[in-house]
Formats: sequence, C-alpha cells, structure tokens
Amino acid sequence: GVKFDPKEHQHLRFNPLTERWVLVSAHRMTRPWAGQTESASEQHVPRSDPHNPLCPGNTRANGQVNPDYESTFVFDNDFPALQPDAPAPPHGSDEDSLFQCKAARGVCQVMCFHPWSDVTLPLMRQDEVVKVIDKWAELVEKLGSTYPWVQIFENKGAMMGCSNPHPHCQVWASDFLPNEVVLSDRSQRAYYERHQEQLLLRYASQEANQQERVVVQSSDWLAVVPYWASWPYQTMLLPRRRHILRLTDLTLDERRDLADIMKRLLTKYDNLFEVSFPYSMGWHGAPTGPHLSGGVDHWQLHAHYYPPLLRSASVRKFMVGYELLAQEQRDLTPEQAAERLRNVPDEHYRNQNK
Amino acid sequence: GVKFDPKEHQHLRFNPLTERWVLVSAHRMTRPWAGQTESASEQHVPRSDPHNPLCPGNTRANGQVNPDYESTFVFDNDFPALQPDAPAPPHGSDEDSLFQCKAARGVCQVMCFHPWSDVTLPLMRQDEVVKVIDKWAELVEKLGSTYPWVQIFENKGAMMGCSNPHPHCQVWASDFLPNEVVLSDRSQRAYYERHQEQLLLRYASQEANQQERVVVQSSDWLAVVPYWASWPYQTMLLPRRRHILRLTDLTLDERRDLADIMKRLLTKYDNLFEVSFPYSMGWHGAPTGPHLSGGVDHWQLHAHYYPPLLRSASVRKFMVGYELLAQEQRDLTPEQAAERLRNVPDEHYRNQNK
Ligand SMILES: O=P(O)(O)O[C@H]1O[C@H](CO)[C@@H](O)[C@H](O)[C@H]1O
Ligand SMILES: O=P(O)(O)O[C@H]1O[C@H](CO)[C@@H](O)[C@H](O)[C@H]1O
Repeated sequence: GVKFDPKEHQHLRFNPLTERWVLVSAHRMTRPWAGQTESASEQHVPRSDPHNPLCPGNTRANGQVNPDYESTFVFDNDFPALQPDAPAPPHGSDEDSLFQCKAARGVCQVMCFHPWSDVTLPLMRQDEVVKVIDKWAELVEKLGSTYPWVQIFENKGAMMGCSNPHPHCQVWASDFLPNEVVLSDRSQRAYYERHQEQLLLRYASQEANQQERVVVQSSDWLAVVPYWASWPYQTMLLPRRRHILRLTDLTLDERRDLADIMKRLLTKYDNLFEVSFPYSMGWHGAPTGPHLSGGVDHWQLHAHYYPPLLRSASVRKFMVGYELLAQEQRDLTPEQAAERLRNVPDEHYRNQNK
Repeated sequence: GVKFDPKEHQHLRFNPLTERWVLVSAHRMTRPWAGQTESASEQHVPRSDPHNPLCPGNTRANGQVNPDYESTFVFDNDFPALQPDAPAPPHGSDEDSLFQCKAARGVCQVMCFHPWSDVTLPLMRQDEVVKVIDKWAELVEKLGSTYPWVQIFENKGAMMGCSNPHPHCQVWASDFLPNEVVLSDRSQRAYYERHQEQLLLRYASQEANQQERVVVQSSDWLAVVPYWASWPYQTMLLPRRRHILRLTDLTLDERRDLADIMKRLLTKYDNLFEVSFPYSMGWHGAPTGPHLSGGVDHWQLHAHYYPPLLRSASVRKFMVGYELLAQEQRDLTPEQAAERLRNVPDEHYRNQNK
C-alpha cells in the first residue's frame, strides 16, 4: 500500500484540551480560490486622531475624557456584555428543563497598549510590551480577587471584528467559568490526576524536544503551532521551564522574556504575508476568585492565537458549514505552518530597508 | 430590586444538544458599529455563465463535462477534504499521548439544486425544492449504506466562504462521527434514557405551545429560533408530529410540507434585510452505516441554520475573541429575533411589486 504522508493524506488529530478532533486534509491547499477576498491594502493609521475615542486626551461616546496616558490605559467598556449588578432570572436551573437560564454577572474593560494609534505589539519596544504584561497581571489580580474568570483577549484587525485600529485588548471578568474554560479545566485536571504532571508542561517539553512545530523559543517560553491546531497558523504560547498558574506569577525575567517572544512571534506573523496579521488571542490561566485558595494545580498558564488568514493577506480560512455543523477541518498541516513561520525573516517588514 | 428583563439584563442560556452555555446580552444592540462592513450590493448573477463550472454543459477544472441537467446534479468534489482510500497513520491512538492521530476516510460531493445560477431555494418552485429534498434523501441512503455519518450542508453567500453563486450544497460522508454529532448524540441519548421521549420531539411540542420563538410553522414542521441560539438569527427546522430518524424516512407529504416551510423560512431571511441572506445550514439525523441496525432511537431529524448577519445586510456578528476563547455571546434575544422574522412580509422582496 501507499505510505502515509500527513501532507498528502487526510487524518484526524485530537485536541487534548477540548477533546475535539480536527480533520487535517493538507492536499486541499492545491485547490484554486474564487471566493470572497478581504481588502488587504495596508490602511494608513495616523498616530493620533481627534475622533478616535481610544487616543489620549479624547472624549469618548459617554462624555468621559481620556487622560493624557503615556503607556497603557484601562477604562470600562461603554457597551459591556457583562455588568456587575444585573438582576437574576426568576427561576433557577431545573436540570431537566429544555429552557435553562441562569444569572451572569461581570465587568468588561478595554485596555489600550500604547498612546499611539500607529503601532502594534511587534512594533513596540520590549519595555513597552513589558508594561502591557504588567498591566495584564494587575487586572488579573484586581478583577480575579472576586471573579472566578478574567478573560484577557485581543481582537486584531477588521477581519476579526475589531472596530478600532488603536492597539488595545479587552478584559471580560465573569462570575462563571466560560464553556471553553470548563473543557480545558476538565482535561487538564484529568491528565494531572493520571500523571501527577501538568498536561501543558509535559506538552511544552515534548514540543521542545521535537522542534517540528516550534515557531520561536527562548529560555522561558515556547511558541508552537499545536499538533491539533484548527486555524491555519494558530499558535500557543507556553512557559516551558516551570509550573506557572497565572500571569500574576510571572517573575520580572519571565515578563521580559515573554515580551521578547511575543514581539518575535508577532513579527513572524506580520512578515508571513507582509500585512498586519489579524487574529484573536487570549490568555488562559488557573481560575481565580474562590479558586485562589487552591485545587487548580493542574493548570498551566498559556495563550492561544487564532489567526484567520490561509493563503495570502486577502484569502482567509472560513470556519463555516462543515466546521460549524460537524468538525473543524484544516488545509495544511501544523508542521507546514510552523515551517513557513520559521522561514520568514525575524526583522519586521516595516523596519526592513529603512 | 429591579425586575429581570431578558431584553435588558444579561443572562446565560443552556444548549441541551451541545451542553454549552450562551451569554445573552441584548442591551449590546444599542452600541454603534464602526468596524468592518460587508459589501451588501446585490451582485447580478447571470442565469448561465460559460465559465461557471457548476452550470449544465460546462467543463469543470478536471476536464469533466457536466450533463445538461434539468433538476439536481451531483458530482464528486474536485478538491475533497475526505477521500475513500487514504492510508492510515502508522501508530494507533494511544489514549495517553498528547499526539493522537487516527485515520479518516470518506467522500465529498457537490450537489447543484437547479440548472439556473440566478435562483436560490426560496425563489425556486415548491416542486423543484421537493426534488432537492428527494436527492438529499437519496444521498443519505446511498452514502449512509456504509458511512456512519453523511453531512449535508450549504454554505450560502460569499461571507460564508461560498465561492460559487450557483445554488448548491455539499455532502461529506465520513467513517467517523464528527465532534458536533458526538455531542448531540450524547445529549439526545441521555435525555431519551431519562424520559423515554426524544429531546427534540419534546422541544418541538413545547415551542409550538409557547409560540414565542416560532418563525414559521405547518402541520408537520416548525422553524424556531432556539432558546439557546448563538448566531443572531439562527433557526432550527424540526418535524413536530412524529419521531423521524432521517431524511430517508420522510413521507411524500412531509417532503412537500418541508419544501414549503423551507421556502417560507428562507423568504423571511431574505426579506429581513432585503438581501440574499447568507448562512451555513445542515442536516443532522440519526447516524447511518452500522447504526442503521438500531440503537439510535433517541435521534430526531433536524436542520440548523447559522446566518451571520446582525444589524443589516452589511454588518455581521463576529464570532471572535471572547467567543473563541471563552463563550459565545449574542446581542439580541432569541425572542426578539423570532419576532423580527415573523414581522417581515411572506412574499419574497424580489417578487414584490412585479
Ligand atoms: O466549498 P468549499 O470551497 O470546498 O469550502 C468551503 O466549505 C468548506 C466546508 O465547510 C470549508 O472547509 C471551507 O473553508 C469553505 O471555503
Ligand atoms: O470589541 P467589540 O466591538 O466590543 O466586539 C467584538 O468583540 C466581541 C468579543 O469577542 C464580540 O462579541 C463582537 O462580536 C466583536 O465585534
């Protein structure tokens, strides 16, 4: 028979965090694309714009005036999906009802990374990125003192539903553990109980040995295209040296190193198609609030990057029909994606030949 | 305290098919949108185009010539994600490995609904839609004689990754049960074991009683915005009268009635923003192949419609950051969505004032 080649022959791979399979059909990369393309022209963003509600000194929709901030700046989302004081629905959860509803409370904040609108994380200085990491840790500390989950996430690029080019992320804290977190918690716990070792610490060491899916690495961190990636150039950012529960636990050195590896990873992304690479990213660490007192040793801090581009700056992967109704499917192998990212230059294209 | 109002106060709702919660924050509909918009201009599609590989009589990329078909037409996908004879990966699934991989085999077909490129299901005659349903049932019968899962799905519109305007759907049959199906199978089975009644038959009867989320209905079928919908105008199409495992089990009357209700539902969709409404849809019924011999009485046939539009023909809901990393969130209640759909005219806007 024919010898199995992952680049030629479709197969399934298992995501041990979510217990979902992904269909890998790398031979699909050869098909032509005649469908929707995204506008890929680099949009010129001015450093400062009097009408942009995220710039220092400007007035937001609700009449509040931003301070003349010089580093990061955090404010309450003007249209929050979660509010701290919403009343609870009348009847509790009857487990057998097909109409189950429960209360949800929380806060939504916006965090600007930098006073300038025309920079992104890979174009910021390392010490500026360290300030972003420090602020993330501070928010986890503050909101996590009561809320069990603090979701830090960045939607970057118009393609990812981002409606403002100013570099920023969001922080949504909730009094419940969201679906994806429940799955990840369950899997990490089960693995830890079986092996007395953190799933993601073990995984990082195995990836570091194999190198095949590593994009960039440092002494403390590893960025890999996970073996089970579903987005074409999906990556996971992992501490590789020690067990770390949350962003708050990072040492100063680990923060510096993280800033550096984030800059390197995001530069690779931008250089791949010479475009400011769109993605959604977010941090997952041990739950907080009541979980601060323990029972979460199975957790290892990590970040997920989900970028939609597939073939070029303008052709994305659509997670549609089969993906929504049946199972995610990808068109190149994670190993191919990692190799392509490794092979692009380390210097940001906007800084080259200058 | 303030009285709970689902339109004003965020809350969580439970999807009993997937065991996922959705965050409903209807007050978010009031926020302005300054982000990416889609081109909403109705694109003129010619009835026949010599360069369109889906039209009757045309030659496809692989050199094959389409017959002069007059109703539906099925052919093998020229760039299939699943092939019947891919070799298996060398090592089997070691349950404890973080690098689990397994074989995947199947077939991918494309099915044209009609010889004309300028029609869609709601604009086709009822007897023409019945032919589509008949062909769906035929494919479930044929591919399902060996494969455990036959996924029929339609990606409609450029926004949903559809690369050809000719009315068509896809059929991917696999030798495995996809993730979403495994979840739905598990939930329906557990409910059936507890109640000796099909979850979705019970659900249909409760929705028919309440009427609040019903969009269109007939003697045999119900189209509702599910209580747990995550896409803004998501619907589910359900048989309401009797237990039906698969498309193959539909009587002639039920097929006629289904054609009619599909036309009515899709006309509502198109009329909502006066645009050919983009969506991904697909059928879920009892597994086939080895499951044809029994053990699947908990299943009830149904279709899911996942349309992305939120505010207008050009502003969609982005399932991004929080949704990908934490939990799906919606900006209007399912009851509001159902009401808006009920309130649009029953006559297709393209046929009005003609
Ligand atoms: O119809 P196509 O071009 O084969 O492909 C489309 O549907 C597939 C199944 O949902 C997706 O995997 C692709 O991303 C999408 O572009
Ligand atoms: O940043 P915004 O405008 O609040 O909203 C964006 O991120 C949210 C969280 O991922 C999504 O729910 C919205 O669909 C998206 O447009």
